[in-house]
Amino acid sequence: MIAYFNGEFIPKEKVIISPDDRGFLFADGAYEVIRSYNGKLFKPDEHIERMQRSLEELRIKYSEIYKLKKVAEELIRINTLGEVQALIYIQITRGKALRTHSFPEEETIPTVYVTASAFHYDPQKLVKGVKIILVPEMRWKRCDIKSVALLPNVLARQQAKDNGADEAVFVRDGVITEGTHTNFCAIFDGKLFTHPVNNHILAGITRKIVLDLCSKMNISVVESPIAETKLKEADELMIVGTTVEIMPVVKVDDLKIGNRKPGPITLELQRKFYLLLEQS
Amino acid sequence: MIAYFNGEFIPKEKVIISPDDRGFLFADGAYEVIRSYNGKLFKPDEHIERMQRSLEELRIKYSEIYKLKKVAEELIRINTLGEVQALIYIQITRGKALRTHSFPEEETIPTVYVTASAFHYDPQKLVKGVKIILVPEMRWKRCDIKSVALLPNVLARQQAKDNGADEAVFVRDGVITEGTHTNFCAIFDGKLFTHPVNNHILAGITRKIVLDLCSKMNISVVESPIAETKLKEADELMIVGTTVEIMPVVKVDDLKIGNRKPGPITLELQRKFYLLLEQS
Repeated sequence: MIAYFNGEFIPKEKVIISPDDRGFLFADGAYEVIRSYNGKLFKPDEHIERMQRSLEELRIKYSEIYKLKKVAEELIRINTLGEVQALIYIQITRGKALRTHSFPEEETIPTVYVTASAFHYDPQKLVKGVKIILVPEMRWKRCDIKSVALLPNVLARQQAKDNGADEAVFVRDGVITEGTHTNFCAIFDGKLFTHPVNNHILAGITRKIVLDLCSKMNISVVESPIAETKLKEADELMIVGTTVEIMPVVKVDDLKIGNRKPGPITLELQRKFYLLLEQS
Repeated sequence: MIAYFNGEFIPKEKVIISPDDRGFLFADGAYEVIRSYNGKLFKPDEHIERMQRSLEELRIKYSEIYKLKKVAEELIRINTLGEVQALIYIQITRGKALRTHSFPEEETIPTVYVTASAFHYDPQKLVKGVKIILVPEMRWKRCDIKSVALLPNVLARQQAKDNGADEAVFVRDGVITEGTHTNFCAIFDGKLFTHPVNNHILAGITRKIVLDLCSKMNISVVESPIAETKLKEADELMIVGTTVEIMPVVKVDDLKIGNRKPGPITLELQRKFYLLLEQS
């Protein structure tokens, strides 16, 4: 596999991360994952814009962010991923420097690492729906930044796996925030509810698409936190994101949702999402 | 400089961290810093025990932890640090694996990276005291684990630097938890107050020494959260830790403490600490 590393296209085996890299020592960096369908990047500008925002919030200066779209396209081409589904992974850290918590010298060059790899998933899940678990919110208070400080997400996702679930969704002060790598939506009486965009969740790109689709479908959207205790009254639940797309949730811990079948609004959103994909 | 990397002593320039290392991708690892005074490790068993606890909490299996003390001693010897002050840095991650949040296969070998380097500091600070700033607690809810997910600490420490301060100390729900790399103690009416050991702070090894010294000095210790609003009534403040030892705090933001001079209990704790060092 050919990767992009600090300005060069090189075999991934030749990518050398220094032990002084602040990504390794401090989780001092941001990332993005862009999906590619048959060689075409999906919403690349939105992902790159979000990366730029993350870097700005972290005060990491990287002047060549405009190049990343071309880099992603080139990686798809070189790695012959033009006819499959693929994920572009982009990570930018504050670079390498002697270890001290505060920022290194201004001249420190950020580390830029990008890969493209084939993405395989189980399409049955999109049809049958998945189980999720609820876990207490453990993360920091800047979940709006897509940082690589993902340890709480790792632990929660493993807890999901240990419990035969696909995703762990965080509960903060009695309300659902989002999943370890997804946003969370619920349908109550024909309306779609999801946590508002603030410092407790990532402003998901798929989440935004879902809200736009709802608008076109005349489905009211309520951007308001969903109480954990309300879930048993939900008609439909879904997790949404770049890798899961629009994924029906049919079980939350031991609670069955919608008689364990994906609901009509979820299915219609999926259908509209794939139409959008075709047109884009 | 010679480092220890996955079982071998090699030049640090030859240490290659894979971009698939979960330390780099997910902050999925733990670390320790041990101080060495003139070739002698200070409290190595306590640090290694705490590393073991961090690894257990993260479910990272590393069977050779008992070797680390010898490794640290060997690094001091090889790098001729026997007659200076040095820091041993130990980082252990869950190893390298294809990127997915949940844990990789059981057989994945942890990455083990250890360095020893000379440690220079400004002794005047110990005499004159330092300024700290207070910042809202932004970190996750498992600060008892010494993980490398240090991004909030990085941002807070930089904020301190931007404000001419040595340390940023977190305030959670109106009470002081700890600093970005130190614990926090306050003297009120001859008693020492510090946050109790729970999931919101790291169980500091220097903190423990301070409490033991207080016990010997017949100074009452109250392990109870300190309200931010109470700070103006404090007689003395200090931050304590492996790198700062027992550091007087004479200013908190714009608030002067003890007429900007280190207090008598702080100075006596420092003195007793250095006596302990000599004897150890």
